[in-house]
Amino acid sequence: MAAGDMHAVDALIGERMGSPVPLIPELARYIIEAGGKRIRPLITVAAARMLGYEGKAHVSLAAAVEFIHTATLLHDDVVDESDLRRGRTPANRVWGNAQSVLVGDFLFARAFMLMVDAGSMDALHVLSRAAAVIAEGEVHQLVAAGNIATGRAEYMDIIGAKTAALFSAAAQVSPIVAGRPEREEQALETYGRELGLAFQLVDDALDYGGLTADLGKNTGDDFREGKVTLPVVLALQAASGEERAFWEAVMARKEQEATSFERAVAILKAHGALEATLAAARSHAQTAKDALAIFPRNPWRDALEQLAEFVVERAY
Amino acid sequence: MAAGDMHAVDALIGERMGSPVPLIPELARYIIEAGGKRIRPLITVAAARMLGYEGKAHVSLAAAVEFIHTATLLHDDVVDESDLRRGRTPANRVWGNAQSVLVGDFLFARAFMLMVDAGSMDALHVLSRAAAVIAEGEVHQLVAAGNIATGRAEYMDIIGAKTAALFSAAAQVSPIVAGRPEREEQALETYGRELGLAFQLVDDALDYGGLTADLGKNTGDDFREGKVTLPVVLALQAASGEERAFWEAVMARKEQEATSFERAVAILKAHGALEATLAAARSHAQTAKDALAIFPRNPWRDALEQLAEFVVERAY
Repeated sequence: MAAGDMHAVDALIGERMGSPVPLIPELARYIIEAGGKRIRPLITVAAARMLGYEGKAHVSLAAAVEFIHTATLLHDDVVDESDLRRGRTPANRVWGNAQSVLVGDFLFARAFMLMVDAGSMDALHVLSRAAAVIAEGEVHQLVAAGNIATGRAEYMDIIGAKTAALFSAAAQVSPIVAGRPEREEQALETYGRELGLAFQLVDDALDYGGLTADLGKNTGDDFREGKVTLPVVLALQAASGEERAFWEAVMARKEQEATSFERAVAILKAHGALEATLAAARSHAQTAKDALAIFPRNPWRDALEQLAEFVVERAY
Repeated sequence: MAAGDMHAVDALIGERMGSPVPLIPELARYIIEAGGKRIRPLITVAAARMLGYEGKAHVSLAAAVEFIHTATLLHDDVVDESDLRRGRTPANRVWGNAQSVLVGDFLFARAFMLMVDAGSMDALHVLSRAAAVIAEGEVHQLVAAGNIATGRAEYMDIIGAKTAALFSAAAQVSPIVAGRPEREEQALETYGRELGLAFQLVDDALDYGGLTADLGKNTGDDFREGKVTLPVVLALQAASGEERAFWEAVMARKEQEATSFERAVAILKAHGALEATLAAARSHAQTAKDALAIFPRNPWRDALEQLAEFVVERAY
């Protein structure tokens, strides 16, 4: 149902990643076409349509949101220094750190040009603030990496900034361009933020194989990078002395051996940390759905509800 | 004379680099307070005042321009991978690549928040386009690094994008917020672009010690990084076979020995390449000054003219 608008978003993305410097679209395409689910622009599109918006600004804003996300992914690859991320060779390992940084900058700038096209200063305010908050969250996570004293509240702050801020902005810009009242803007801001938190917590659980413990090629990124995500925070709360020493070694000192990751998964499972993380994700997804209750039911509202279900169902 | 406005710009810069994540202002301060000459924001301020602008948007835009410049410097350090740049340890060698990338992103996002404060969609258009062009120019220079076939026209394209685009945007936003006619906007856009080209060419000559051949701690960055700048382009046009082999070795293959830099300087001097580069800089600075002729003479116009003179005089 969203196919028409999302096709327009994809076309715009393809057009705006263009440059006379061939390396730019080449590298941008590598990451943009890496099978991204386009969840963030879908939120913008579906929210705009749910509100009966008839203009075209939502398409530009949706593309801008995806560009911000893509720029963040490119810069994350430089930050994380892994040989494998999200199951494939990161762009910086193919083209180099410098190239990834600069193409990220290019996409970031193009995102703002798309926002200018959309023509709403209020939407620009929301998205530029989100971009600053994302960077703050990333720096916060970097500082917290390897710190096994990271608590649940601090971790939720980090992902509220690094992940949920963009989901929330993606949802909030639609009522803004549609000229809807403050109450609806707040409801969609809540929807986006809670959906973003749910999305990140599911990602965190999946990085340890989720409930099926399917340790495929997409797992272990966070562990290798020493990121103290919610599963680890929860396992640490219930840890024996020996387990605490293990987390200290693999996270704080990055003393990781061939069997370390499997042991980490076993400890997480023993304490039910993945189930508890997914339970938290379900709770945030439910809050996201509840926030939509003020809107009259229509197929677009249904789509947003289904998105909240899909985000959690990925884990099962 | 510009002191009042520039003080306001500095205060705004100090305020907007703030963050609850302490590493951010710490790292940002390292680079922002590194004795930057604030040339770009000075252009915005002086141009606005020359036009009789009485509002406050120029202060926000000037700070935004400096933040874009600072973000670019932070990301350049990651790109260039030197142990010493601009005569000091680059931020990424003090805090790490990841930190420099993310704080650059933060400042970039904050730049756009400042533009939103200024409230002009047209200024946002000009500055977001400039940011994209800068990234394109940086990628272009990266691709051209070590390529001794880089010609003069291609090199001028590169610096037109990586350096002059921001100078030009810094000048152009002032007539925009002051609501001045297209003709004045074009004149200031020309002023900024030509000043930016002059500035970069002087930098290029100074990186080889300029006319005084003062090979202090601020020299040799471009050489070490294999950047084929205008002095090298000009020396290559007049190169003997042996000299061409030298440039091929030190630039394309980065085979640099302890004496390579001194030899490079000697070759540049033998061909008058530094003089020719500075002559080109003077010509661009003159074109910049000429572009101001349509404006009535006042102290602010004088300041912009003096800035064009200062930019070139640095080399003597």
